[in-house]
This record gives sequence, structure tokens and C-alpha cells, in this order.
Amino acid sequence: MENERLRKQIDFILEADKEKNILRQTHLTGNGRRENDAEHAWHMAIMIYLLKEYANEEFDMAKAMLMALIHDIVEIDAGDTYAFDAKGLETQDAREAKAARRLFGMLPEDQGEELKSLFEEYEANETPEARFVRVMDNFQPLLLNHSNNGRDWKEHGIGKSQVINRHIKTKSGSDVIWECSEKIIEDNVRKGNLKDE
Amino acid sequence: MENERLRKQIDFILEADKEKNILRQTHLTGNGRRENDAEHAWHMAIMIYLLKEYANEEFDMAKAMLMALIHDIVEIDAGDTYAFDAKGLETQDAREAKAARRLFGMLPEDQGEELKSLFEEYEANETPEARFVRVMDNFQPLLLNHSNNGRDWKEHGIGKSQVINRHIKTKSGSDVIWECSEKIIEDNVRKGNLKDE
Repeated sequence: MENERLRKQIDFILEADKEKNILRQTHLTGNGRRENDAEHAWHMAIMIYLLKEYANEEFDMAKAMLMALIHDIVEIDAGDTYAFDAKGLETQDAREAKAARRLFGMLPEDQGEELKSLFEEYEANETPEARFVRVMDNFQPLLLNHSNNGRDWKEHGIGKSQVINRHIKTKSGSDVIWECSEKIIEDNVRKGNLKDE
Repeated sequence: MENERLRKQIDFILEADKEKNILRQTHLTGNGRRENDAEHAWHMAIMIYLLKEYANEEFDMAKAMLMALIHDIVEIDAGDTYAFDAKGLETQDAREAKAARRLFGMLPEDQGEELKSLFEEYEANETPEARFVRVMDNFQPLLLNHSNNGRDWKEHGIGKSQVINRHIKTKSGSDVIWECSEKIIEDNVRKGNLKDE
């Protein structure tokens, strides 16, 4: 291809395709198969639009959607780290930073820097977009898991306080979704799907 | 749930999850499994950002991304219609219009109308966003199929003119991507992956 810039963009697009093979612990509704990262990101981006009225702060829609769409691309190299895997969480940042350098480094420099910054902004959780995307990153698997009667928590023997800790950042992004999340968690404690320590 | 509006939004979000089970004819890179609609839409939305400089017209990024993300939701009811299935294509519009009424009708009225309009705008192909989203709807499977040495075309015995017809709308959305698409098609004809009638 004569156009070097377009060639780099296409190489990245094809590399990103691999995100469809990164499996999460969450199962699809209807007790389906395990979800992959690309599907999760797609779902989150739609939810950002559908639930925007519940964000605590004004935010930029295109920026938040793109942030959601790319937030897990590093897992192509670093793998998915389960939210309740303490050992994996210790090394997660270093593994993901290395992956971000390689993957975003495939793009033309301006776009690579832009996406790497957006990914780091998400991780830092200090802007309205990052906080609202985080709400979706928490709320999306909560809804799926709730629809499957807490299957993922039961399989891993998860307790209420672990889930509360995992979801606590939801509060700073959306009071309404946090309130809804709390109700769902309580409901699953009542049903015995989540251990009540 | 006390909040009737949020309940409707969540019901739609869980219904949309089913899009992850709608399989396309395209296979993932590396001769992987068949791709599903949600993955395809995720990939398209990222490509809209990455390739925006090649759009023939200015467009609204958030609108185009959302259009891409929801453009295949109707296939939850209507199924995927293969681009080269002449019989399926005859009934596609009616099946998809019915699906749009049911699926978007699950949402609060304002949001349901908004998404239904956006879907219809995509289908009509008369705005800058619709034209550029169409470019991605064509170019994304072209790239995957090309990376797999034309596997999908070979399996279905597809000819060059069929592919050109399928991709012709790319030209009105992006001259650069059309030129690149033509080269890819020619390359696959040369390799014998596409019948040269």
C-alpha cells in the first residue's frame, strides 16, 4: 500500500480484532457463553448514550464512547484480570502499560498518543468522561450477572463486600446508577447469590 | 424498580445483549470463528474514529458512532441477511422495519424514536454520517476477509462484480477508502479468491 499512514491504521484495526478473543468472567444473558472484551465495550458504549441523563456531571459523548470502545484493548497482550483476582491485580498496571505502548504504538504517532492518553485518562478516573465510563464498566456486568441469577458470583464464591468495593467508584459517576446497583446487590444477597459476610 | 424510565432502559439493554449471538458470514482474523453483530459494530465504531480523516464530508462523531453501534440491532429479530443472499434481501426491509418497531419500542418514547430515526437515517444513506458509517460497514468485513485470504468469498463462490456492487456505496462516503477497497478486491481477483467473470 502506498499510503503509509493508512497502512498503519489498517494494521492496528486488524490487531484490535484480537480483542474479540479475550474472554471475561461474565456470561451473556440467558446463561449464555462467556462474554468477550469487544462485546462488553460495544454494550458499554450504547449504555453511555442510553443512560447519559444519570451522569453526575456533563460530559463529552464522543470522547466517552471512544474511551469505552478502547478501554480494554490492552488486554490483547495483558489478558483479562478478573475483578476479584487479588494476585492478578498486583501486576495488572505494569502489564497493561507495556501493552499500551506496543498496541497504540502501531498507529501513526498522533493517533497513538491520543488513544494512549485516553486509555490513561480512563485509568486515572479523574475526568467526567472517565468517571461515567467507569460506571458502565461496573454496571454492564452487574446487569448481565443479575439477569443470570448471580451465576458468576456463585461460581467464584464472591461476597457482598467484595462487590461493593468493586462498584464503589460508580457513586462518583452516577448517584442514580449507584442507587440502582445497591438495590441489585442487596437483592442478590437476599437470594443467597452473594455471601453476606 | 421504582424508576419506570430506568427499568425500560435496562430492559432494552438486556434485550440488546442478544445481538452478541447473531452470527455473520465473516470470520475473525487468523481464520477464527464467525464474527457476531456486536463485535462488528464495535469494530466499525473504532474505525470511524481512526479513519475519520478520509471521510468525503464533515460529520458528527458521536452521532456516527452511535449509528454504527445500533445499526444491526434489528437483526436480533430479523436475523443477519448475507450481502449476497438475493432471496433474503427481498424481504429484508420488511423484516427489519418490524424488528425496529418492537425493539426500539421497548425504550422510553423519546429515546426509542431517536434510535429508530437514527437506524432509518442509516438505511436511507442520505446524510454524511450514514454515508461514512456505510463505508465502515463495507470496509470492516473486507479487511477481515482479505486478512483470511478471501476465505468467505471462496466458501460462497462470490465473483468480483458482486463485491463491487456490494461496496459501491463506499465511494460516496470516502474516495480514499474506496480506492483502497478497489486495490484489495483486485488483489483477491489476482489470487483467485474472487471469481473474475
